Amino acid sequence: MSQIKLISRASRVLSGAAGRSELALGEAVSAQPQRNHTSVRTMASQRKTLTLETLNPNIKTLEYAVRGPLVIRAAEIEKELEKGAKKPFKRVIKANIGDAHAMGQQPITFIRQVLACVVNPELIDSGKYPSDVQERAKAILAACGGQSVGSYTMSHGIELIRRHVAEYIERRDGHPAKWQDICLTGGASNGIKNCLQLLCNTVDGKDSGVMIPIPQYPLYSASLAEYGLGQIGYYLDEDKNWGLDTAELERAFHEGSKTHAVRALVIINPGNPTGQVLTRANIEDIIRFAHKHQLFVFADEVYQDNVYAKDSQFFSFKKVMTEMGAPYNSIELASFMSISKGYMGECGLRGGWMELVNLDPDVQANLYKAISAMLCPTTLGQTAVDCVARTPRPGEPSYELWQKERTAVLESLNQRAKMIVDTFNNMEGFSCNVVQGAMYAFPRIDLPPKAIEAAKAENKQPDVFYAFKLLEETGICIVPGSGFGQRPGTYHFRTTILPQPKLLQEMLDVFKAFHANFTKQYS
Amino acid sequence: MSQIKLISRASRVLSGAAGRSELALGEAVSAQPQRNHTSVRTMASQRKTLTLETLNPNIKTLEYAVRGPLVIRAAEIEKELEKGAKKPFKRVIKANIGDAHAMGQQPITFIRQVLACVVNPELIDSGKYPSDVQERAKAILAACGGQSVGSYTMSHGIELIRRHVAEYIERRDGHPAKWQDICLTGGASNGIKNCLQLLCNTVDGKDSGVMIPIPQYPLYSASLAEYGLGQIGYYLDEDKNWGLDTAELERAFHEGSKTHAVRALVIINPGNPTGQVLTRANIEDIIRFAHKHQLFVFADEVYQDNVYAKDSQFFSFKKVMTEMGAPYNSIELASFMSISKGYMGECGLRGGWMELVNLDPDVQANLYKAISAMLCPTTLGQTAVDCVARTPRPGEPSYELWQKERTAVLESLNQRAKMIVDTFNNMEGFSCNVVQGAMYAFPRIDLPPKAIEAAKAENKQPDVFYAFKLLEETGICIVPGSGFGQRPGTYHFRTTILPQPKLLQEMLDVFKAFHANFTKQYS
Repeated sequence: MSQIKLISRASRVLSGAAGRSELALGEAVSAQPQRNHTSVRTMASQRKTLTLETLNPNIKTLEYAVRGPLVIRAAEIEKELEKGAKKPFKRVIKANIGDAHAMGQQPITFIRQVLACVVNPELIDSGKYPSDVQERAKAILAACGGQSVGSYTMSHGIELIRRHVAEYIERRDGHPAKWQDICLTGGASNGIKNCLQLLCNTVDGKDSGVMIPIPQYPLYSASLAEYGLGQIGYYLDEDKNWGLDTAELERAFHEGSKTHAVRALVIINPGNPTGQVLTRANIEDIIRFAHKHQLFVFADEVYQDNVYAKDSQFFSFKKVMTEMGAPYNSIELASFMSISKGYMGECGLRGGWMELVNLDPDVQANLYKAISAMLCPTTLGQTAVDCVARTPRPGEPSYELWQKERTAVLESLNQRAKMIVDTFNNMEGFSCNVVQGAMYAFPRIDLPPKAIEAAKAENKQPDVFYAFKLLEETGICIVPGSGFGQRPGTYHFRTTILPQPKLLQEMLDVFKAFHANFTKQYS
Repeated sequence: MSQIKLISRASRVLSGAAGRSELALGEAVSAQPQRNHTSVRTMASQRKTLTLETLNPNIKTLEYAVRGPLVIRAAEIEKELEKGAKKPFKRVIKANIGDAHAMGQQPITFIRQVLACVVNPELIDSGKYPSDVQERAKAILAACGGQSVGSYTMSHGIELIRRHVAEYIERRDGHPAKWQDICLTGGASNGIKNCLQLLCNTVDGKDSGVMIPIPQYPLYSASLAEYGLGQIGYYLDEDKNWGLDTAELERAFHEGSKTHAVRALVIINPGNPTGQVLTRANIEDIIRFAHKHQLFVFADEVYQDNVYAKDSQFFSFKKVMTEMGAPYNSIELASFMSISKGYMGECGLRGGWMELVNLDPDVQANLYKAISAMLCPTTLGQTAVDCVARTPRPGEPSYELWQKERTAVLESLNQRAKMIVDTFNNMEGFSCNVVQGAMYAFPRIDLPPKAIEAAKAENKQPDVFYAFKLLEETGICIVPGSGFGQRPGTYHFRTTILPQPKLLQEMLDVFKAFHANFTKQYS
């Protein structure tokens, strides 16, 4: 479990001074459990009802590096620039988050036209939009209470759209999907959290644990912390292009089992932050492993449209396990998809879905019951999901433009993926695996011993120290590897490949100069 | 704590047979904690990794009556009708949920026009929309990354909109509001859950407890169950039009304190399901009580625009505590608002906000950190929030239509509130308090002893039994009082006042006939 400690230590450093005062206060309470109620209330009345001392401890532990202290500082710098502060750069480049539209990617016209029609139905017959747009909007409105997107929907989403998603999955995989097993969500994160929460329990006297990759997307570590679930990290193999090795899975499972009931396995494919696309053979191995240890598989497949490498192909876990046949086709699986990624990049609309496979029907009923208290995912996110699940077909009036826009986005991402990796690999002290898919590069950097000492003196992780320097000196905002987890003694960072080509080139030039200077300064 | 047991007993009955098998399995596990890991895994492999036995027990306990078994059955009946089944009615009337558009309320044109412009910006300069709509849309887009609503926003929302909300609150209350304390949410439920979760902790060896009204909106009981927080119920006084009595608050606090660290007080004003609007004097009493016991106040004020009674007026907790001055103006408060209610009824868009007052800055920072992992509330929900916070002003081109539509909705709700109460009070065995505000009537019904026996024979709560009969015989879907909590031996139900006047009259006529027949059958 050493990796767990590593991650949480990293988070503590990230959270800085607040983390320390929390601990001090927390200890004071647990040191004197015998003191009576009144005395503590009286003491507390000089402060607040809710303080760091009495706050949910899981919320204190939780960290989400993608929007952590670096990003908060980046926002401050933006405000300083607005107010005319003089900096060695003119703007902040937010390479910290997979936010395509914010980096200049244009929306897909078809999606936005359907959205305009459902919010303002008088546009449908205005003659302004193609007939397939009109038809989609009408069908969605007909499925809404009172023909209005202002109505609540079922908590798992509009049946019509769930059916379209099932058809999308059938076309993708060549195997049936049940619409009843499709649950629409307000983005993938919502679905992932709802499913993780099901696992909170003690089995055989041990708290539940979940296996997650290291490096991982920090929604997982944050949610595990929030729910008090054990984080069982397994390392991806950087030397094998962040591939997944069954021996390492076994090692992590057995180490994790000493302290936890290991019940689930998270796979992110294509990888975030690591950009690998798993081979079919690798997926088969993982499924065998999951079956052997009876693990619930979380397949985070939100980047399924983002595959760039020529020899890579996306295979869904559902497809592979189905084709492996019995007994592997019976493992419990939740697969997650989002409209925030792919060629759409519609992060702000908050839409996604999960496909639930082989769940115990009572468990699925409980999941659907639990989400019902949150009423429903946004109807407009659902509308965008419909556009993604049921794209224009050849011959339909919107097809040509849709196809052109989609291809342009994906080809440009493909070029940028290559450009960024090539540049990094030409930089002294950098090594970067091929970005086969997703939206990020996760290069490894050598930091000079003097830089590591300087970081220690500032009570920062070396990669955090590096990232702060980069931000302050160049305006480039990246996320340090410690936010995702990395092997001890190695340093990485995640950058998106999303800045438009011209800005990306500028960013890489500035980055290169910064790194040369940094290395010189600390050697 | 008898009311807690009552509620949870009611939920168990609602959940029916599943609840019983859960218990049996749960007991089997806890009875033999010593058996080794392997044996249980092997046993379990004949079933699933995740079963009712190993599911998060809080998720099993959680119930949300507004979308419970009755509503599931109502959906089934709708499908049966579609397939041509013969029933004594032609359609299901969903009076179970505050879903205005689904019941025929028309959207506010201004909101929908601004939405159309932000999703499809080429509409802005199309000459189709008034200049104030164009201006709002442009301002929102300028505040979005890459000028697109497809970008993520800050996790607490777009700064521009948070500022508009603060200005709205200032106009409403006549006192300053800080925009930094406004957090936009994906509907009020999200904000309420995020704040409740902060309280999960053990203080002085006791688990945290939260005071909620009985009857209550079941999001509260569901969320307390989900988070393992203690539910400390205080009764509203039906004989005083569901008013709130300080002596009852004290009773509940002291009873709750025997088992829990009582840390927060939930007030729903205007009331859901009870429809009362608290007087200013009553709010002052509550604030004194909260201050005396140092309670964090959750002010659920989502119905602030829905006040119908001539002698009633909405006062926000923030306004009243501010005007009471020290020491009362320092209590910790979270006030919740939604775009789903009021005159807007935009449930499907998922938008709302919370105002955080007097929170410990470290706690607020932790709250903002925790929500950051969920990225952001939907930009389109935020856009609708902007339209609600910054409504058209007199003289602006959209003002007249906006004012007309708003007034028409609220006046019609006012009429329906009266109509429903008058009808119920003319029905034998019914008594119904005035609906001063919100969107619901919560009448009390006398059930004949024979009906209570018949319910027992079916293992149902009497009010659940009644509601199922009503649904099967008339197609009217209401929510039984046991889903909200009620004094032992009393029976109620909640119906919305949302069916349009003609349908509402029809519903009330059918209801009256049903009730006469039911009473006859069981007396």
